[in-house]
Amino acid sequence: MEAVYFKFILSLGLVLIFARIFGELSERYFKQPAVLGELVAGIIISPFLLGGLIHDPIILNFATVHNPFGLQGDFDIMYIIANIAVVILLFQAGVETDIRSFLKQAPTGFAVAFGGVVLPFVGGYFVTRALCPDVGIGGWLFMGAVLTATSIGVTVRILMDMGRLNTPEGTTILVAAVVDDIIGLIILSIVIGLSETGEFEILEAVKIGAIGFAVWFSLLLIGIKLNKYISRFLLNPFKSSGTAPIVALIIGFLVAYLVTLVDLHPVVGAYVAGLIFSACQEKEEIIEKGRPIMLFAAPFFFAYLGMMVDLRLFGAPGAAVLAVLLIVVAMVGKLIGCYIPARFAGKLSHNSGMIVGVGMVPRAEVGLIVAAAGYIAGAISLGLYGAAVAVCVVTTLVTPAMLKPFFKRQLAQVSEPVSGDSNSSNSA
Amino acid sequence: MEAVYFKFILSLGLVLIFARIFGELSERYFKQPAVLGELVAGIIISPFLLGGLIHDPIILNFATVHNPFGLQGDFDIMYIIANIAVVILLFQAGVETDIRSFLKQAPTGFAVAFGGVVLPFVGGYFVTRALCPDVGIGGWLFMGAVLTATSIGVTVRILMDMGRLNTPEGTTILVAAVVDDIIGLIILSIVIGLSETGEFEILEAVKIGAIGFAVWFSLLLIGIKLNKYISRFLLNPFKSSGTAPIVALIIGFLVAYLVTLVDLHPVVGAYVAGLIFSACQEKEEIIEKGRPIMLFAAPFFFAYLGMMVDLRLFGAPGAAVLAVLLIVVAMVGKLIGCYIPARFAGKLSHNSGMIVGVGMVPRAEVGLIVAAAGYIAGAISLGLYGAAVAVCVVTTLVTPAMLKPFFKRQLAQVSEPVSGDSNSSNSA
Repeated sequence: MEAVYFKFILSLGLVLIFARIFGELSERYFKQPAVLGELVAGIIISPFLLGGLIHDPIILNFATVHNPFGLQGDFDIMYIIANIAVVILLFQAGVETDIRSFLKQAPTGFAVAFGGVVLPFVGGYFVTRALCPDVGIGGWLFMGAVLTATSIGVTVRILMDMGRLNTPEGTTILVAAVVDDIIGLIILSIVIGLSETGEFEILEAVKIGAIGFAVWFSLLLIGIKLNKYISRFLLNPFKSSGTAPIVALIIGFLVAYLVTLVDLHPVVGAYVAGLIFSACQEKEEIIEKGRPIMLFAAPFFFAYLGMMVDLRLFGAPGAAVLAVLLIVVAMVGKLIGCYIPARFAGKLSHNSGMIVGVGMVPRAEVGLIVAAAGYIAGAISLGLYGAAVAVCVVTTLVTPAMLKPFFKRQLAQVSEPVSGDSNSSNSA
Repeated sequence: MEAVYFKFILSLGLVLIFARIFGELSERYFKQPAVLGELVAGIIISPFLLGGLIHDPIILNFATVHNPFGLQGDFDIMYIIANIAVVILLFQAGVETDIRSFLKQAPTGFAVAFGGVVLPFVGGYFVTRALCPDVGIGGWLFMGAVLTATSIGVTVRILMDMGRLNTPEGTTILVAAVVDDIIGLIILSIVIGLSETGEFEILEAVKIGAIGFAVWFSLLLIGIKLNKYISRFLLNPFKSSGTAPIVALIIGFLVAYLVTLVDLHPVVGAYVAGLIFSACQEKEEIIEKGRPIMLFAAPFFFAYLGMMVDLRLFGAPGAAVLAVLLIVVAMVGKLIGCYIPARFAGKLSHNSGMIVGVGMVPRAEVGLIVAAAGYIAGAISLGLYGAAVAVCVVTTLVTPAMLKPFFKRQLAQVSEPVSGDSNSSNSA
């Protein structure tokens, strides 16, 4: 009676328990955010290390099915569960966001997003061009695109764990992450167009970006203007059974899918759905019931990010120098590109500016998706792909440790006004 | 950038929202348990009805992959998620169980389980033998086995929703469900042996059953005797980060897998893991944080049960008469077989005896697993399989409506002592 799903139950349990143990060790003995421990746990138990020793297609492995439905790409069941987990995380972040702080920081967030795109893109393009002149413009552009895309998960998790979501720098990062996703979409569409047809389809790209913006802002507006009706017609019917918060989360799933129809990332949809409910009067109840679901699910996403790291990819000859240079460009470019607008457009302090800059550094799965798109399109080689993976891994791993001292300094100074959640740190 | 997992997010969202809406309608307008609405929602959106109109391998479909890993049987991704959900449900039921009531009702539960096995097994055997004499002893035995296996999910969910888990009849049902799983294991092993080799391997079967019992009781004993150490060494380290309840649930996953190594059903392991933590001092915290996770996940399991129902299977010529007879035997046999021991061994009232009897009626996925094993082994035909599916579907669908009046009468009388959770009804 050995059933395949038994092994999935085991795998899920193992990933989660390792994530939790390493997360706890990370906090307690290394004074680092739990998310760092979860990422490291993932690397250790990955199919490329511990999982590889088990020789089972499912247990601590990806259970990858190649092209089962005639669709492009592989079909990785653990990846699906991880992505469901990050949707839950970003929905919860949305509900916990103070929508007023979010709107207040919107202009700064826009400036930060644009600043954080320019330097890494230009840097990635020229570094690749200098070191790999034979790759061609398609490859150079793709590597630029890999370097632009911020993955918000790690930073949001740290902001939530430390109760810093509703600080000016927290909401600036959140606005910037949303805008960054839309800019990334525009860039990717231009880059794919260029590498496929050789033409610079700027109008098409701007159209895609404009639609993305329009959809996202319409959803935000719905939350701001129509939250009374959302409470009355969507949540109220489920109040007597106590499932209104669950219904809110389910709507988060549906919105996460809806935004993918205009090519936005599902987490951007989940986040805006959360924002909509953060404007509703049921906010507190949704936060309270959503926290345990998020605490249960989110570590799976971060451990999974670690599990995707094949350390051997970094050993490819020639890739090392390129990888190191790209990592430097990715980090310094994003940091400076975000710090300057945060400081001067947003009038944030040096410390807050550094939090915004460092918080935008992780590329994680978003960078990997862009790199994979380039690899599948034939625009970048396996060596370049390895370097891109290195960028995504390193930028993600260093962020928790880099963020921590700035938060610590800020908490010691208590120089910034904190609206709301500073005491809710991780205690759910 | 259309990714496969986007569709999974949509599917999950759609299944959950339909389940919640139908669950709410069921409670509000039909005065039936929510779980009935969830089952009906599943039937309506199943690949055989609404899902079939969508013509997509994933959205409201099973995303079944045939034999991707060279393992036996199909590989259904929604099925995996549904089974994760029912593990969460039974773990939560375990934690919410009062372990003293559970132990107090153990003798009654044993008697109920044995009583509930004999009549359906004998009835199923002879009905099939009378109507399908050409099938042979393997097929007759398999149909008997299909009729013995109780699926506890539906009844547990109703008990929890109505706050009747820790009543004498609630804990009797829970004990009986565990014992029933082990007896089912013994029967299945005998039946498979007989239909494959023609030999009656009673010793082997008794050994399998004894191991199952031994493992289950060892786990229960650990909970009763060592709960202080479990609190100190497994939960305490995670208290400061507020994740002790999450760790408890993760351990539930691991135990759910462990018991499958001795051929028990994962939900039996999840339930005993929950029982272990119900003996720990962290019980209340685990209940409180686990409830939202359970409320979010469990409806997926019930909707999925409904989604598996292919109504066309019942239309097979000749299957109808057999199906109707088997349904009657399955229901009446289980009801009488459980009612008598509950009344006379357990000294429960008529009303409580009826609750126990009706509560043990659903066969759901457990019966389907047995039927599928018989079909794969070649012991039963597609017609018999269709009849088995009908038994599983009907016994599951009628239970909520049948249970409700007995609960109502009992609550009106307030004749039984209720220890603990009578006010916690669904309000989490």
